Amino acid sequence: MDLNMRFESEFEDPSCPSGVCPPKLSDYPIITAAHGGGGRLTHKLIKDFFLRALGNEVLAQLHDSAYLTLPTNKIAYTTDSFVVSPIFFPGGNIGDLAVNGTVNDLAMAGAKPLFLSLGVILEEGFPTEKLWDIVISMREALKRVGAKVVTGDLKVVEKGKGDGIYINTSGIGVIEHDLDISPKSIRKGDLIILSGDVGRHAIAVMSVREGLFNVQIESDTAPLHEPVLKMIEEGVEVHCLRDVTRGGLATVLTELAEASGLTMTVYEDRIPILEPVMGACEILGLDPLYLASEGRFVAVIPEKDSDKALGIMRSFEVSKDAVVIGEVTDEYPSKAVLRTVIGTDRILEMLSGEQLPRIC
Amino acid sequence: MDLNMRFESEFEDPSCPSGVCPPKLSDYPIITAAHGGGGRLTHKLIKDFFLRALGNEVLAQLHDSAYLTLPTNKIAYTTDSFVVSPIFFPGGNIGDLAVNGTVNDLAMAGAKPLFLSLGVILEEGFPTEKLWDIVISMREALKRVGAKVVTGDLKVVEKGKGDGIYINTSGIGVIEHDLDISPKSIRKGDLIILSGDVGRHAIAVMSVREGLFNVQIESDTAPLHEPVLKMIEEGVEVHCLRDVTRGGLATVLTELAEASGLTMTVYEDRIPILEPVMGACEILGLDPLYLASEGRFVAVIPEKDSDKALGIMRSFEVSKDAVVIGEVTDEYPSKAVLRTVIGTDRILEMLSGEQLPRIC
Repeated sequence: MDLNMRFESEFEDPSCPSGVCPPKLSDYPIITAAHGGGGRLTHKLIKDFFLRALGNEVLAQLHDSAYLTLPTNKIAYTTDSFVVSPIFFPGGNIGDLAVNGTVNDLAMAGAKPLFLSLGVILEEGFPTEKLWDIVISMREALKRVGAKVVTGDLKVVEKGKGDGIYINTSGIGVIEHDLDISPKSIRKGDLIILSGDVGRHAIAVMSVREGLFNVQIESDTAPLHEPVLKMIEEGVEVHCLRDVTRGGLATVLTELAEASGLTMTVYEDRIPILEPVMGACEILGLDPLYLASEGRFVAVIPEKDSDKALGIMRSFEVSKDAVVIGEVTDEYPSKAVLRTVIGTDRILEMLSGEQLPRIC
Repeated sequence: MDLNMRFESEFEDPSCPSGVCPPKLSDYPIITAAHGGGGRLTHKLIKDFFLRALGNEVLAQLHDSAYLTLPTNKIAYTTDSFVVSPIFFPGGNIGDLAVNGTVNDLAMAGAKPLFLSLGVILEEGFPTEKLWDIVISMREALKRVGAKVVTGDLKVVEKGKGDGIYINTSGIGVIEHDLDISPKSIRKGDLIILSGDVGRHAIAVMSVREGLFNVQIESDTAPLHEPVLKMIEEGVEVHCLRDVTRGGLATVLTELAEASGLTMTVYEDRIPILEPVMGACEILGLDPLYLASEGRFVAVIPEKDSDKALGIMRSFEVSKDAVVIGEVTDEYPSKAVLRTVIGTDRILEMLSGEQLPRIC
């Protein structure tokens, strides 16, 4: 079955900015309760927005379930709900965030992202123009990855019972390797590689939220599957991968330390953080190690393969600034440790509560 | 891998009503923003509620993705978001509704439901006692089906930006047959079987919503995979299946007529509707043919296999009242037709908007 078939649809038109023309938005400028009733208007909304922008041969069937034949029966399966506020932020919106977030969870299993599900909860009164922008962002993010939305669902809640739009994506990726990519595989002596500077996503969202301050930082939201799959293809013995999202680098390192029983030792001066991100953190009193990124990951790689891994990661735009930030030791069992610029050790802790709500 | 392993966990205790003891709810009587921050409190909530009630070997790993080996590479994949209001209603709550809804979408593809994802959006202030009741309902619904939640996500939104709890489930089922169960397979002369009386779910929800009236009707929410899989196993040539949910029987029949190009002809006096459901419809001015059920389905079966299909359906409690309600003709192309008790034909239309909002 050619999943790409419906992308070459009647709606494709290079003269429209996104390559596909919007429906007549003036017909229904805002979402109403009736759009969620399951009748004609629901069908029209699904066809005009979701099929038009994301359509493919499977989704177009509008079955209760998508029928799929997978190239292998070893899969990774994940889900994420997205409640980011605001919905649009510098460098992205809830749409590409929802695609990239699920793609990245699959990539962190060393899986090739193939199929996504899409659950949308709209609040009555949401402008359809914004909805179109969001589905177009999803379209572009999916095309970049080569994945498809094959099944979906749409609900509408009353005004005041939502916040514009919430999106859930789940995803299926196929696993074509025999590695056990998990904290269990982490060994003493492994190197800890970070794929680039951290914290941009959180600061981009904060910069527009409540107009607190004005910083020219764009979210790093991006798919991470390419460097990961290339490392695996080239025979790098990948021990563990984790994308740096909610909770930031400190949380990721703490989780890996706890799950492996070993010590994740990283060097403060090797962790790349952009100057404006650091500046915003100083103004707001935030610790950049706890800031979410949406296009960065940590790879734990045996030293023998680390040069190869770095070379591959640096060959992709999304991870071109990859750098070794530390190594796995056994100094402090089940702890993550930051070796500071003045030579002292700081044990990293998971935040007890939250630093920044609704960042993804 | 034994997915059941963690069900025999330290938390199992036959002295607790649900077979698993609740966490110490007095430690955190309500959900706070911090529960969604991705730090310690998020981890604690996930462990205390979701792992405790739904835990299994895969979910317990708390990876970004679940690693799964499927028994076959032909699958069905579906998603649904649940925003039902109120969250608790006679006969069920949002938890078992979310499990059964996704199980039923898979069953309608003739797939065996195996794995579910779970995305939960909680509103700040939501009582954890209710959350426990919901996860316990999910636990019981999953056990009944033999399916597992293998991956999940939790978000918290501020008070006034949600409505207690919204749940998204997606699901993967395996397909072990060669039938093409879809509207394309519907043929003239096929019989239309309905698995039982319709409309109970909608009326159960309405009966508690805003205390409009007092009816002793429980939701029909239930999993439908057993009669479906048994029919397939016994060689019934199933042409098409569709569960009767949002939009009701009229919408299902209209969709099947439009997708097949044929006429779905049903007889008014053969459609089972309970007396109190009918009575509530008369009071409220609702058409029972548009009421949602959550445990009923339509099967389109060639006449040669219809007795066998009926026999199998009637052997399961969930479909014991299965009955032939009509047949596929070509009288009115792409239309569903109700042959009334006075012998006239009424063309069924999809509702343009909504009859009852937030029913699932």
